[in-house]
Amino acid sequence: MPVATSTARPGGRSARVRAAVHRAVQEFLAGNPAETMTLPLIAGRAGVHPTTLYRKWGTVADLMADVASSRFSGDIVVPDTGSLREDLRRWARDVATDLADPDVLAVMRAAIGSGPQGGCACTADRHAQLTAILDRERARGGTAPETAHAADVLLGPLYYRAIFAGQPADPSWTEELVDALLK
Amino acid sequence: MPVATSTARPGGRSARVRAAVHRAVQEFLAGNPAETMTLPLIAGRAGVHPTTLYRKWGTVADLMADVASSRFSGDIVVPDTGSLREDLRRWARDVATDLADPDVLAVMRAAIGSGPQGGCACTADRHAQLTAILDRERARGGTAPETAHAADVLLGPLYYRAIFAGQPADPSWTEELVDALLK
Repeated sequence: MPVATSTARPGGRSARVRAAVHRAVQEFLAGNPAETMTLPLIAGRAGVHPTTLYRKWGTVADLMADVASSRFSGDIVVPDTGSLREDLRRWARDVATDLADPDVLAVMRAAIGSGPQGGCACTADRHAQLTAILDRERARGGTAPETAHAADVLLGPLYYRAIFAGQPADPSWTEELVDALLK
Repeated sequence: MPVATSTARPGGRSARVRAAVHRAVQEFLAGNPAETMTLPLIAGRAGVHPTTLYRKWGTVADLMADVASSRFSGDIVVPDTGSLREDLRRWARDVATDLADPDVLAVMRAAIGSGPQGGCACTADRHAQLTAILDRERARGGTAPETAHAADVLLGPLYYRAIFAGQPADPSWTEELVDALLK
């Protein structure tokens, strides 16, 4: 481990603190009710002084919004098969797989519980991915539904079932959602 | 107030305590972040001894599930216009109106944040209402979609937009959802 190098870059330490704190939040939520989480408890798990957390995030709600936007960003590669239907089917199946992970659901529920901004942070990236898939179809010369409508038809049922109905999504059901969107 | 009567009925006192505690939770959530809620804080607001709350609910998560299932039960009258389309349009508009209330959203977010059972408690009654509307159409001799599919198409987008996208639903959009379900 190049300790000398990393102490010479303050950004390196800051990034490590953030990673340790995010990991501490996810580990905490995997084993404890969200409402028992406090900044000092997370600081203790992450091996960081509590004042660092108060200075950097201020409140549990701000920390959860940061964890959610980081956790739900950039970890799904947008498929590019040349077919809109196949791209959407693969993408919807990946979203469903992610939503079937109890640890993912715990972070998402805690983010929603901590305030309005937390909820949005969970899905901002999904909207961007969906827009990218639909835009690519138009660039190919095809037609594609508007993002808002596609989000209603695809993300609506996926997130509703995961959060409200407590039902795991099966892959053939996600294909039906895509087929309903594209007729 | 018939004090003698109410002290003679233990159920009366228990119901009043429950109502006072539920009201205290809703008032607390209207003005404070959900993650700062504790049973002693709610006990203080409700004028009830904390041990009563610990004995009756045990944890914030159990209390939130009870508040959510009570708050989201029986307060929407299922429309009966003689037409499935019109029944669903009115019902979907009522659900959307409910979801546009910031106090309703605060209770719902807190219930989701407090654990898996919280989310389900928010929508169990909506499923029952939807099933009642669809069953009535079949009893009239008409055909109606399955509840699970109708929930995906109607409740999915309504709750997704309210919780994740932070968008208020407009009435014409809820009609489009119903028209998409019934073709």
